[in-house]
Amino acid sequence: MSPFTGSTPSTERWRNLRVTRQDGVATVTLDRPEKLNALTFGAYADLRDLLAELSRERSVRALVLAGEGRGFCSGGDVDEIIGATLAMDTAQLLDFNRMTGQVVRAVRECPFPVIAAVHGVAAGAGAVLALAADFRIADPTARFAFLFTRVGLSGGDMGAAYLLPRVVGLGHATRLLMLGEPVRAPEAERIGLLSELVDEGKADARAAELAAHLAAGPALAYAQTKALLTAELDMPLAASVELDANTQALLMHGEDYAEFHAAFTGKRPPRWKGR
Amino acid sequence: MSPFTGSTPSTERWRNLRVTRQDGVATVTLDRPEKLNALTFGAYADLRDLLAELSRERSVRALVLAGEGRGFCSGGDVDEIIGATLAMDTAQLLDFNRMTGQVVRAVRECPFPVIAAVHGVAAGAGAVLALAADFRIADPTARFAFLFTRVGLSGGDMGAAYLLPRVVGLGHATRLLMLGEPVRAPEAERIGLLSELVDEGKADARAAELAAHLAAGPALAYAQTKALLTAELDMPLAASVELDANTQALLMHGEDYAEFHAAFTGKRPPRWKGR
Amino acid sequence: MSPFTGSTPSTERWRNLRVTRQDGVATVTLDRPEKLNALTFGAYADLRDLLAELSRERSVRALVLAGEGRGFCSGGDVDEIIGATLAMDTAQLLDFNRMTGQVVRAVRECPFPVIAAVHGVAAGAGAVLALAADFRIADPTARFAFLFTRVGLSGGDMGAAYLLPRVVGLGHATRLLMLGEPVRAPEAERIGLLSELVDEGKADARAAELAAHLAAGPALAYAQTKALLTAELDMPLAASVELDANTQALLMHGEDYAEFHAAFTGKRPPRWKGR
Repeated sequence: MSPFTGSTPSTERWRNLRVTRQDGVATVTLDRPEKLNALTFGAYADLRDLLAELSRERSVRALVLAGEGRGFCSGGDVDEIIGATLAMDTAQLLDFNRMTGQVVRAVRECPFPVIAAVHGVAAGAGAVLALAADFRIADPTARFAFLFTRVGLSGGDMGAAYLLPRVVGLGHATRLLMLGEPVRAPEAERIGLLSELVDEGKADARAAELAAHLAAGPALAYAQTKALLTAELDMPLAASVELDANTQALLMHGEDYAEFHAAFTGKRPPRWKGR
Repeated sequence: MSPFTGSTPSTERWRNLRVTRQDGVATVTLDRPEKLNALTFGAYADLRDLLAELSRERSVRALVLAGEGRGFCSGGDVDEIIGATLAMDTAQLLDFNRMTGQVVRAVRECPFPVIAAVHGVAAGAGAVLALAADFRIADPTARFAFLFTRVGLSGGDMGAAYLLPRVVGLGHATRLLMLGEPVRAPEAERIGLLSELVDEGKADARAAELAAHLAAGPALAYAQTKALLTAELDMPLAASVELDANTQALLMHGEDYAEFHAAFTGKRPPRWKGR
Repeated sequence: MSPFTGSTPSTERWRNLRVTRQDGVATVTLDRPEKLNALTFGAYADLRDLLAELSRERSVRALVLAGEGRGFCSGGDVDEIIGATLAMDTAQLLDFNRMTGQVVRAVRECPFPVIAAVHGVAAGAGAVLALAADFRIADPTARFAFLFTRVGLSGGDMGAAYLLPRVVGLGHATRLLMLGEPVRAPEAERIGLLSELVDEGKADARAAELAAHLAAGPALAYAQTKALLTAELDMPLAASVELDANTQALLMHGEDYAEFHAAFTGKRPPRWKGR
């Protein structure tokens, strides 16, 4: 637990997500299978708050985001979200859309890798959640659909128009965000949307395995790698090189770097401490 | 027609382009087939002015850019452009090169999707025009060649050194712009330069079909998707997420979003109004 | 030789690199095959200083970076670098890491194309050196490994977290930098990390051929293409288009542009002067 905690209590129970923790890995499961894990206001809020809490506590070193049942996530619930937003005023609409964007920023900015385990549909906000993750492990049933224009909205939702061109290039991103057509696993792999394609039904297990590997490794090195990847998308070359130099100088005083050297010279595997 | 029109008359006849309009789609055809549609000063000027006029009038909702005859566009005319520029002074050269760049900016910034229908050669400025489009529909005869260095000029022409790395990555972009070698359809598809590869001779028809689909759809949602994709290439993550939130809040008060919900609950297809 | 030289003498002998020059091509060979060309402090310093000297002298028009023996470069030497850095204070660590970053900046910013000829291992700093080059020519034995996290450091080293997402996209870059797993030639080609895959044992010869082609060509056009590709990764669209316009106006007053036109109208091959 971080020493930098104040008065805020930890949340006892996440009502809109299933959250488990083991050996430094948090597994967050969207668990409304009867609705293909459609997101509600409460689910967005819980994702935002959970990621903030985990980032502050420093209690986990990797996070898996998965979906219960037939698919990963069908996006915002048509009844509970689209219906409700039609009755909102401008300030409420802005509040809602800022909240969904905060979830994406939290996924990109939390100090641990996030692994999306995708099977079946990842649509709308569900596709963007997966897109924001550091790793996308998918099985052959996976299909991504950025279907915002299909409900009359902008394909740029929750940072998708920022993130998708940086993952698959501007050409594919334009096609996907403009048309909202489904992208199945083979195409997703071909254009660089997947980190790894696994056998059917194996996405959750492989994501858990990768998360365990990351949590048992040099976690501070992973956290800084993620932080630099996120930051340097928005930085020029010269400043990026300077940030890298400062980061490595810092980590070269860290325990894991010394441990690597001791293990290498002692011809034994390193015992990573994550700091 | 937009209420925001002033004294400027509409252009009666585009002397250097063939322009047709139907059901919200403008089709702009480079029509000098005896010269492989080589661009002249007049053609650049007409493209610049046509896109400005269409953007201001709000009279079309999608635009197809195509080439008559054996290819899409062979680039700037060697006789009429290279020869003429050799006699120009510095101010004239800057004026000319700014004009060609304005065409590319207009393609990226106009409030409707632009679809390039490419068959045969798309060379030099022709390759950059296609690159600037939102969609590149090509048939197997298509070949792109960014051949600026072959005439002793910079591969960064009309924004190509900005756009190409963002479409195909820095490695491929360096190779293509530095060497000016032709990229045939299979490679173009593999590296992400094509939106869609169609059967020989079908690029124009497929582009027309896609344009009709876009023009019949939620046009404001498409326009905003394009605007965000263009803008967020130059924006950091946090600001992009905020821009997305504002855009969606705006569109959630639009007619098409309400129409989607009414159609969905009424179990009927939406009747998009484009606003 | 550039007229803009002052008092600084040229380096007579590069003690930590093998450097040869012929017909405008510099070939820089990492030449410690018994250590798989592991980099020492001296090798980094020589790379930094050599690139600065060549950039200032304007004496070469293309540069090949290759490795002697069984591979390209195994990265920083575990004994001579990792061991030594463990004994350094903060200021020394920052100095070292800034030096390695300066090598990458010099590769990106020198006014001539750099071609990495890769066979066998390109690991750690060796992988980033290849990544910073304009062209990566590899044979089927090539394998890239950004293995910084495996020694407890950040995957963002020497600009890798800036460059790699811009070459292969954020998804692949995250996987490669976070996990440090080897990327073999077929995958490297598939994700856009290679400029060209050649037959086994032919990387050096093909790199030399490409360098000779570039050195015999319109060298100023190539230099400006490289400069714009580097600069425009960090620039917005409108400014990039303006920079392109200025660059082309400049080159249209250059000798090679006039030479192209004279050769074209005279139906003969151009005799490039590189200015």
